[in-house]
Amino acid sequence: MGKDGTELREFGMEQCVGEASVRFREPVEIMASASVVGTKEGQGPLGALFDKVGQDDYFGGKTWEEAESNLQKEALRMAFAKAELEPKDVRFLFAGDLLGQSIASSFGVSEFGIPHFGLYGACSTCGEALSLGAMMIAGGFAERIACVTSSHFATAEREFRFPLEYGNQRPLSASWTVTGSGAFLLRRAGLQEPGRARILGMTAGRIVDYGLKDSMNMGACMAPAAADTLVRHFKDWGRSPAYYDHVITGDLGSIGRTAFLDLLAMRGIDLAEKHLDCGMLIYDAERQDVHAGGSGCGCCAVTLSAWILKQLEEGFWKRVLFLPTGALLSKTSFNEGKTVPCICHALVLEGA
Amino acid sequence: MGKDGTELREFGMEQCVGEASVRFREPVEIMASASVVGTKEGQGPLGALFDKVGQDDYFGGKTWEEAESNLQKEALRMAFAKAELEPKDVRFLFAGDLLGQSIASSFGVSEFGIPHFGLYGACSTCGEALSLGAMMIAGGFAERIACVTSSHFATAEREFRFPLEYGNQRPLSASWTVTGSGAFLLRRAGLQEPGRARILGMTAGRIVDYGLKDSMNMGACMAPAAADTLVRHFKDWGRSPAYYDHVITGDLGSIGRTAFLDLLAMRGIDLAEKHLDCGMLIYDAERQDVHAGGSGCGCCAVTLSAWILKQLEEGFWKRVLFLPTGALLSKTSFNEGKTVPCICHALVLEGA
Repeated sequence: MGKDGTELREFGMEQCVGEASVRFREPVEIMASASVVGTKEGQGPLGALFDKVGQDDYFGGKTWEEAESNLQKEALRMAFAKAELEPKDVRFLFAGDLLGQSIASSFGVSEFGIPHFGLYGACSTCGEALSLGAMMIAGGFAERIACVTSSHFATAEREFRFPLEYGNQRPLSASWTVTGSGAFLLRRAGLQEPGRARILGMTAGRIVDYGLKDSMNMGACMAPAAADTLVRHFKDWGRSPAYYDHVITGDLGSIGRTAFLDLLAMRGIDLAEKHLDCGMLIYDAERQDVHAGGSGCGCCAVTLSAWILKQLEEGFWKRVLFLPTGALLSKTSFNEGKTVPCICHALVLEGA
Repeated sequence: MGKDGTELREFGMEQCVGEASVRFREPVEIMASASVVGTKEGQGPLGALFDKVGQDDYFGGKTWEEAESNLQKEALRMAFAKAELEPKDVRFLFAGDLLGQSIASSFGVSEFGIPHFGLYGACSTCGEALSLGAMMIAGGFAERIACVTSSHFATAEREFRFPLEYGNQRPLSASWTVTGSGAFLLRRAGLQEPGRARILGMTAGRIVDYGLKDSMNMGACMAPAAADTLVRHFKDWGRSPAYYDHVITGDLGSIGRTAFLDLLAMRGIDLAEKHLDCGMLIYDAERQDVHAGGSGCGCCAVTLSAWILKQLEEGFWKRVLFLPTGALLSKTSFNEGKTVPCICHALVLEGA
């Protein structure tokens, strides 16, 4: 595969860079976004920034799964309202969640009637959706794209661990699944007034498996995947930590962060000053008893919508690398004694 | 959103057609593919055409889930061998299966180390993977792409119904999940000697839910989604059944086929002569006791690789519309009394 621009162009790979990255000819814009969260997230440090905090965690549903579907519906509705668009104005929707067969999404977004691509990347799904969505626009396949992801504490506990009624205890290395959904509308940049931020390109994650089996310490499991993607991103794009105002992982949490920084230090990269983690930003570790931090498809999605894009929009930051992380286990793989393979996608975001 | 070519070009939507379709500027080629199946599929009418039929249905694994992962590994390895390529020669991999959190894929493909996009579209996933993979190439984001999907009778029974050991009975409307995996390698057409077939474009499916709740009659649940996508495809592309040699659905089975043809007849479309269904092709209904037919992510993938592409390659057919269908239910949604929302993507295939 060609390494220099000329050769890449000959292959029709005009928007490729390096081994696994994409750099758009023309940036793609996040024109609008919305975040809807549960009560606990509303009480956290970012609480005032979310577009909507639910009254209870059922969001009008009769089951936790309906609640999560309603979260997606509400986030998507609010994003459309902010952009003054209707569902028919977007060409494709990329959606995903943590549940088996992605039922939160299937039941959440069907009423919009938008041609649909279902994704599964565990907690990295927000990064996967924005990556593929932006490529659809940069490739000339769509004018506008919608992306939505979600997670819910109670559905995730049932799906991966035990139903809440069992009163299961959680070790200190465990994370707390965020109840929340973030929705994003993408379009080509430069057409009208600037949107919230621009997506310049991405680096796709590989599945990285260090052989860890502790599903109650997913931060440590995911750290190698985050380090792998970050190192490949720097290589593909010819960049270093100095280029970015912040490198923001999805949901490594406090233990995962330590492992992530250690793995990078072993490769001569000092990221301590530049690194932030959505899982550590969304809850108050002192006050909210979430152990290692927040996690879930909703964690980085609502943090991106409510806080990261705001920082870019208001000019506090210019350039951010957004690194949603995901642990690709299931309760079946856990019960069969398997490891926790992980993945992380990187998105290059700049202020509009 | 613009309806005529000029307006679409102004929006940078050079490769869009109609409301939800994509037509590539330059076709994408399926350069190589491989199919690996279980014993029952090996005994079916297409048995001699599959690249490999397993000795037993464990494929060297200790669990059914490992077996399914090994199916994906083997299919992908054989596709690479046929194309005389290595995993590093493809830029991205699109993969998916039916299991919760797509574990067959995560554990199946991680050793290849290819940057990974996980998909969930139930039995339509093969169509979703080929659609997105082809768009990556036509958009200038990759020179070559790999796609792999799988299903396994025993993992699907555990995931959706009951473990095999329960000896559960199945109604005549139920389908039999295909044990099999199909892998495909895509590249731009016209670069070297012709590949197996060309992908000209696609029409993306919407989630269609007619309110049916019978998970033992998924053909009937999926028929409205297939009809919806087909009608929109004809509208977007300005085509009729006459244009195609065959319109081939993924896994409607015999009951789903009847519902599909009826729904089309209500809209004035007579497809009886042109329609084929992979679920009805893969088993011998008289001899193999599969009830309504085959189903699963593997069903249309192995039928495409072993038979449909062969017909195109050998010139028996010129143009085929490939319509993988998927039922987006889970055991949780079923147990909570929900409906079975469905989806179907359409791919336009032509002989190389």
